[in-house]
Amino acid sequence: MLEKLKEIVGSTHVLTGEDAQPYLVDWRGRYKGAALAVVRPGSTQEVADVVKCCVTNGVPIVTVGGNTGLCGGATPDQSGNAVVLATSRLTQVREIDTDNDTMTVEAGCVLQNLQELAQKSNRLFPLSLAAEGSCTIGGNLATNAGGTQVLRYGNTRELALGLEVVTAEGEIWDGLRGLRKDNTGYDLRDLFIGSEGTLGIITAATLKLYPLPVAQTTAMLALDSLEDAVSFLSRARAGFGPALTGFEVMAGPVLQAVVRLFDQQRIPFDGPSAQSPWFALLELSDSESAEHAQERFEEVLGQAIEDGLVQDAAIAQNSTQSKAFWHLRESIPLAEAELGKSIKHDVSIPISRIAEFVQITNAAIQKTFPGVENIVFGHLGDGNLHYNVAPAQGQTQEALLSLQSEVYQLVHDSVADFKGSISAEHGIGQLKRDELPRYKSAIELSLMRRIKQALDPKDLLNPGKVLTVA
Amino acid sequence: MLEKLKEIVGSTHVLTGEDAQPYLVDWRGRYKGAALAVVRPGSTQEVADVVKCCVTNGVPIVTVGGNTGLCGGATPDQSGNAVVLATSRLTQVREIDTDNDTMTVEAGCVLQNLQELAQKSNRLFPLSLAAEGSCTIGGNLATNAGGTQVLRYGNTRELALGLEVVTAEGEIWDGLRGLRKDNTGYDLRDLFIGSEGTLGIITAATLKLYPLPVAQTTAMLALDSLEDAVSFLSRARAGFGPALTGFEVMAGPVLQAVVRLFDQQRIPFDGPSAQSPWFALLELSDSESAEHAQERFEEVLGQAIEDGLVQDAAIAQNSTQSKAFWHLRESIPLAEAELGKSIKHDVSIPISRIAEFVQITNAAIQKTFPGVENIVFGHLGDGNLHYNVAPAQGQTQEALLSLQSEVYQLVHDSVADFKGSISAEHGIGQLKRDELPRYKSAIELSLMRRIKQALDPKDLLNPGKVLTVA
Repeated sequence: MLEKLKEIVGSTHVLTGEDAQPYLVDWRGRYKGAALAVVRPGSTQEVADVVKCCVTNGVPIVTVGGNTGLCGGATPDQSGNAVVLATSRLTQVREIDTDNDTMTVEAGCVLQNLQELAQKSNRLFPLSLAAEGSCTIGGNLATNAGGTQVLRYGNTRELALGLEVVTAEGEIWDGLRGLRKDNTGYDLRDLFIGSEGTLGIITAATLKLYPLPVAQTTAMLALDSLEDAVSFLSRARAGFGPALTGFEVMAGPVLQAVVRLFDQQRIPFDGPSAQSPWFALLELSDSESAEHAQERFEEVLGQAIEDGLVQDAAIAQNSTQSKAFWHLRESIPLAEAELGKSIKHDVSIPISRIAEFVQITNAAIQKTFPGVENIVFGHLGDGNLHYNVAPAQGQTQEALLSLQSEVYQLVHDSVADFKGSISAEHGIGQLKRDELPRYKSAIELSLMRRIKQALDPKDLLNPGKVLTVA
Repeated sequence: MLEKLKEIVGSTHVLTGEDAQPYLVDWRGRYKGAALAVVRPGSTQEVADVVKCCVTNGVPIVTVGGNTGLCGGATPDQSGNAVVLATSRLTQVREIDTDNDTMTVEAGCVLQNLQELAQKSNRLFPLSLAAEGSCTIGGNLATNAGGTQVLRYGNTRELALGLEVVTAEGEIWDGLRGLRKDNTGYDLRDLFIGSEGTLGIITAATLKLYPLPVAQTTAMLALDSLEDAVSFLSRARAGFGPALTGFEVMAGPVLQAVVRLFDQQRIPFDGPSAQSPWFALLELSDSESAEHAQERFEEVLGQAIEDGLVQDAAIAQNSTQSKAFWHLRESIPLAEAELGKSIKHDVSIPISRIAEFVQITNAAIQKTFPGVENIVFGHLGDGNLHYNVAPAQGQTQEALLSLQSEVYQLVHDSVADFKGSISAEHGIGQLKRDELPRYKSAIELSLMRRIKQALDPKDLLNPGKVLTVA
């Protein structure tokens, strides 16, 4: 079979032994697998031929993009039975159509390259997330990645107009449409998006582009409570309209830890505002000018301060200051790493219930695991919290991590009580596969299994990810 | 079986004979069917019980909402074997959550009632279309309705966060989530949306709300060509940002026919601009003020006129004028009716190729059917054209309609050449079912059939719509 694969993709693109190793471990080193070989097809036709070859031999296929996932979705199991299909050579940009505001690109394109490509055409491709320097658009689509611009532009799902997919039989579905309206049959596109390589292999996509904003300006807010942040979000959505592209919240102690740990960081408030229990970071993307964005901030924030909803506000006066505010927010994961490995949750909650969720869950955590640090921050505008738990003072990270499954269960049970999601933007992969049946109805799991059975009857596409077929 | 159905929904809600007639004909009178009975369940549980009863008896179920569809999707066939399930009693508003910007409503709610409900809560539910006074949200979801606000807010698909669906086995799937981010398995929601009642019966949905804009202002533009309209659309998207909520185009002769036929209508230009070959209608939804919207219009339109891209522009000075401009656009279908029944197409084309599509298709139409009137207008911002063909001078409408299938094929073949869609916003139903295999690949049809088979193996849900299962 390896000979046949070498015929299809060329012998230098079938990797085994040491060369295959980087593809068999996830980037955080939490999952290690084995494989017959890693193959790197150079075209959609080669992907199709590889799949046909694997099907003939009953060999499972695990597709990997940039290998930046957080749930082990692209790492094969340890049986060594599978072929890993790497999309790294599928990097062609097939078309940029500025009048249609679309680009058609192959699955292996790195996200940051696509952002830059769009910018060169005076357009914005708004998907933006921490791994953008190495994640691929194929992986973004397969996991329906979220990121920092969801409030305005949606998840990856909302940015895709069309797909090209290789099916479980090795056929090529050409669904590369650049249309905003198309009601001709079932929505196959959205079925493949977010299915984590278990229903088909995405080889290319037609993506939406937007005009570049003229200015992006941020403001930091000091708030008395998360309730106030939620109330102010409604006002901000009305007052700024769709110019509001970011609304992040951070618990006070989290931001205070950042400035304690990193000398060059500073909360932009003096006096008691710097000790606020909550902070928010807002971003406006303006189609007029930076001055207009600042005026809008002044008007809406001024009124909110007058009404006692916001305690203090610092509006960035230039792009350096705007970046400094974002940098403060982005330093939270680095501060967390300094505090010792934490137990992380990627959850979403209806926005109206977030404050109550945090209050009740924090209390339950403290009752069951006294003294641990609750690290709470996230994309309030999307209802998406990174709800993390760090070691108590004097507790080793090993001692905390030994409690991981209990902590997961407590937090996820609370999420379920509030009708939230246990995976807002990272997917299921292998990490949460066995948790899913606890939170999904039997009917929903049955519908999912029937679709898996219909599109991949032999269970050869990324088996054991998202759900078990048995 | 009718006795059993009466037990479930109450005998007054099982209609036969004359009482059933209104449900057996589509509103335009183009499709006439027959049915065992029309049942009107009063709750999701009753829907589930009706489906179970039908499944037990091997009886097909055709679901109908407001019966305003344009493709016969909600009309049963003439066999008389089916039960028609009317959602008219599923009108409960289960929740409005303004902090989460969502509302959860049942399938039978009339769209306009939902718009008004949102407005009372100081929110916008942006879905808006001609039939809004009688169409239901269940039908909007089942057909993924488009309408006039798609440029900014997307189709119905983009406005739904969660669904409740009764499956082909009469089970209830509770997918009523009010979350902006949720990556926990396959996207069942989008599979049911747009499936025209063939995969499941949507009984309720959680929908997105938006802030009410402070002002909505329109402008009319006179343009030399459709190419110029496309070029200006790019500028308008950049200059107005997401405040641009409408960008309609109308061929000059079409608008000139409107003012010729309706005395009270007037093109807001004097001199040669009134005779322009193309017009555009723009709408801005502003989060500041009407004055701000007018200023933005003046700046962006002023520059475009200076650059020769736009020939003339009239900015509405108040809401009465804004409405008058919209009224002009909305009078086109009325003018068409005066000109004699036309052959209508609901197509979409990549925006960059629309001008070429119209030029080539108009020429082909004139060559094959000399003298007929090309009526071209539509939502340019979405790439969606209503491309219609009216009788030639002296030609009876009967003579024209006898050519309908040839005209359809010519236009749809041209759409396919331009990688467009033969049904942008109206769906497939029975009208375009047999056309679909001409324009969809065998692979795509096979994927659709496999999904239908997986979710409705007995083909009892709206059989013969969208696709044939054989």
